[in-house]
Amino acid sequence: MTDQASTGLGLVQTQSLELGAEPLVLDSGVSFGPITVAYETYGTLSETRDNAILICHGLSGGAHAAGRLEGQEKPGWWDCMIGPGKAFDTDRYFVVSPNVLGSCYGTTGPASIDPQTGKPYALRFPVITVRDMVEVQRRLLDHLGIRKILCVAGGSMGGMLALQWAVAYPERVRSVVAIASTHQHSPQQIAFNEVARQAIMADPAWAQGDYYGTEGPRLGLAVARMVGHITYLSDSGMSRKFGRRLRDRERYGYDFSLDFEVESYLRHQGQSFVGRFDANSLLYLTKALDYFDLASGHESLTEAFQPSRALFLLIAFSSDWLYPPQQLKEVARAIRRSGGDATYYEISSDYGHDAFLLDYAKQTPLVASLLERARADFGEIDPGESEVGDAASGP
Amino acid sequence: MTDQASTGLGLVQTQSLELGAEPLVLDSGVSFGPITVAYETYGTLSETRDNAILICHGLSGGAHAAGRLEGQEKPGWWDCMIGPGKAFDTDRYFVVSPNVLGSCYGTTGPASIDPQTGKPYALRFPVITVRDMVEVQRRLLDHLGIRKILCVAGGSMGGMLALQWAVAYPERVRSVVAIASTHQHSPQQIAFNEVARQAIMADPAWAQGDYYGTEGPRLGLAVARMVGHITYLSDSGMSRKFGRRLRDRERYGYDFSLDFEVESYLRHQGQSFVGRFDANSLLYLTKALDYFDLASGHESLTEAFQPSRALFLLIAFSSDWLYPPQQLKEVARAIRRSGGDATYYEISSDYGHDAFLLDYAKQTPLVASLLERARADFGEIDPGESEVGDAASGP
Repeated sequence: MTDQASTGLGLVQTQSLELGAEPLVLDSGVSFGPITVAYETYGTLSETRDNAILICHGLSGGAHAAGRLEGQEKPGWWDCMIGPGKAFDTDRYFVVSPNVLGSCYGTTGPASIDPQTGKPYALRFPVITVRDMVEVQRRLLDHLGIRKILCVAGGSMGGMLALQWAVAYPERVRSVVAIASTHQHSPQQIAFNEVARQAIMADPAWAQGDYYGTEGPRLGLAVARMVGHITYLSDSGMSRKFGRRLRDRERYGYDFSLDFEVESYLRHQGQSFVGRFDANSLLYLTKALDYFDLASGHESLTEAFQPSRALFLLIAFSSDWLYPPQQLKEVARAIRRSGGDATYYEISSDYGHDAFLLDYAKQTPLVASLLERARADFGEIDPGESEVGDAASGP
Repeated sequence: MTDQASTGLGLVQTQSLELGAEPLVLDSGVSFGPITVAYETYGTLSETRDNAILICHGLSGGAHAAGRLEGQEKPGWWDCMIGPGKAFDTDRYFVVSPNVLGSCYGTTGPASIDPQTGKPYALRFPVITVRDMVEVQRRLLDHLGIRKILCVAGGSMGGMLALQWAVAYPERVRSVVAIASTHQHSPQQIAFNEVARQAIMADPAWAQGDYYGTEGPRLGLAVARMVGHITYLSDSGMSRKFGRRLRDRERYGYDFSLDFEVESYLRHQGQSFVGRFDANSLLYLTKALDYFDLASGHESLTEAFQPSRALFLLIAFSSDWLYPPQQLKEVARAIRRSGGDATYYEISSDYGHDAFLLDYAKQTPLVASLLERARADFGEIDPGESEVGDAASGP
C-alpha cells in the first residue's frame, strides 16, 4: 500500500552526534561510553519548541525513516507516515528520528570500534535494555534543545520505546503512539527471539561474535531473519500472497530446491537481510526486547503509568499474532486504571504484524487527530528547560 | 497428564519386515526398493480379522507407540491411548504401528544403506509423499493378512496418513481418527518447515547430506527442532509453564547465556532431539508434509472423499495454532458434503498442538465410541482378501 514514489520530503541526510564524555550508566549498572547517535530530522522546530515528535524504529529499522538518501532509490521505512501533509505532517511538526543504541546504522553498537582496544566491541559490548535506548534518545533531545516532546511514536520495538518514554519521563511526554507492540515480551515472543539467536550462534562463522573483517554468520543470520518474517505475516495474508503456488512445477518432488513461492520469499528475505544487518546487533536488540517489562521497578503496570499525563494512542492489528491485540488492550486498561487518557484501536487487516508499516491510510487519521489534541493542550514547557544540555541528567 | 508408569502392555518388541523385491513406484514416478518396514503390534488379530487398527505416528515418532522396549525406561509415544482398557483397547483390538518410509527408526530412509553403493542414501534417497508412506503401510498390512482395517488413526502427520488412507483405499478403511491435523499444508505451515530445513542445511556439518560417519549437523538440527517446539505449544500454555521466570537471576543482563526458563526448555528440546533423529529424515518428512494435499488428483476435497464409506472422527484442540481447528472443520464439511459420516470435536485445551499426545482423558471416550460403532457395522471382508499378499497391487 506504500506508494514508494511519493515521498514528499525529497532528499534527506543522516546526521551524527557524539554524546558528551560523561558515560551512560546502563540498566545493568555498567558505565558505557563514548556513544555516537545517528539521527535524521524533518520539518522545523517551532520557536516555542512545542512541535517536536520523536520517531522510534523497529528491530531492523534505523534513523532513515522518511525521504530519500542521496544515491538511494528506496525511501525511509515510514515514508508513508512522515512528510508534508502526512500523518506526521512535516509542514507542522519537527520530527526527530534516531537510530537506537546497539543497532548497526550509525549509533554505537557491537560493530562499533571499542576505543580501548581499537577493535569492534563484538560481545564485549554491554547488554542493553529498552530503557538504555530511551536514555540515549533523551540525551540527543537535550542536545537539540527539546525538553518536552509533543509525541513519541513507534511500532513494534519502537512502540516499546514510546511507552518506556512515558514511564521514564512523564513530565517530558505530551502524547504517545504505540503500534503493534506490547508492555512485556511473552514466553512465545522470547522463544522466537531465542531461536533467532541460536540460529546465529550455531553458525561457525559467528566465531563467538568476533567475525568482523570476515563474511560473518551469513547463513545463520538468514535463518534468524526467516523465523522473524514468518511472525511478521499473518496466516491468511500468506495464503492470499502465496497460496500453495509452486514456484517451478518442473522441479516438483525431486530435490530440496525451491518448490513453493513462500519458500522463495523467505529465502530472499533472509538473504537480503544478511547484506544489511549486523548479526551481533540482532543478538543484543532481541535480548533487550526479551528483558522488556514496562512494569519492572513498579508495583504494577497501572502504577508505572500513574505519573504520566500523556495522551496515549494504541493501535493493534487484528491479524498480528506476534504482538496480538490483547497486549495493547492490556496497556490501555492499565493506563485508564491509572487515571490516564488512552485510546485503543484495533484495525482490521490481514497484513499481520507488518501492517504498521503498510496500512498507513487507516493509521493516518488516528495519528493526525491525536497530534491535534496534543498540540491544542501542550501545557507549559517545563522550567527544567534551562538545564537542557548534554550533561543534564534525567529525573 | 501421561502417567508414564502405567503402561499396561509391559514389554513389547519392534519387528522388521523386508517388503518383496517388487519396487514401489513412488508418487514422483521413481521406482524404489528394497524397503524394510519396522513395526510393532499389540493385542491379537481376531479370526475374522475384523479388529485391526493401524496407528500412524507424527513427524518424529516411530513404530514404538506403546509398552516398553527392553532396557528402556520411557514407554511408547501414545502409551496413554494404547493398551488394555485404554482408548485403543488391546484386549479387544489388534493394533499395528509401523514406522513411516523416510524416517530413521527402522523403516528405510535416507540414513539406510543404498544396496547399489553400499553407502547411506543421504540425498540420493528419492523425494517421498504421504501417499508413498501409505503405500508402504498397505504392503505391510497385506503381508499381515489384513485386508480391511477397523480403524486407521493418528495425530499431526499421522492424521494426514489416516485421511490419505480413506481417500486412497476407501474399500479397506472402516473408520478414521485424525487428530490435530489437516488436509493440506498452508503457506505458514510450509514456511515453518522451510525454516527448519534451512537451519539444517545452513550447518556446514550437514555437508550436502553426506554427514554419515561424522557428528552431522547437530547445531542446525537443534535449531530446526526449536522452531518446531514453539509451534507445538500454545502461547497461553507457554505462559502457564514458564511465565517470564528467569532461570538464574544472578546472570541477568550480562551475556547471552540462559536467562528465561523458556530458553532453557527450547535448548534442551533441541539438544535431546539431536541424539535421536536423523537430519536428512527431517528434510524428507517435512517436504512430504508440505506437498500433502488430499484433494490433489481430485476435483475437490469433497470429491476425494466420495468413494469412502468410513466413519470419521476428527479432533482438534482450541489452542493448536500449528494445525488450527479450522482445518479439520473444513475436512468435516467436505466429508459431509460427499455424503459421508464425520464427527468433529474441538477439545478445549491450552496444550497447543502437543495436546494430542497429552490430553488422553478427553480423547479416550470419543475414540472408544467410534471403535464400537465401527465394529458393530464392520461390513463384509472384501473378496479381494484372497489376493492379499506382498505382491498385491492397490486399486
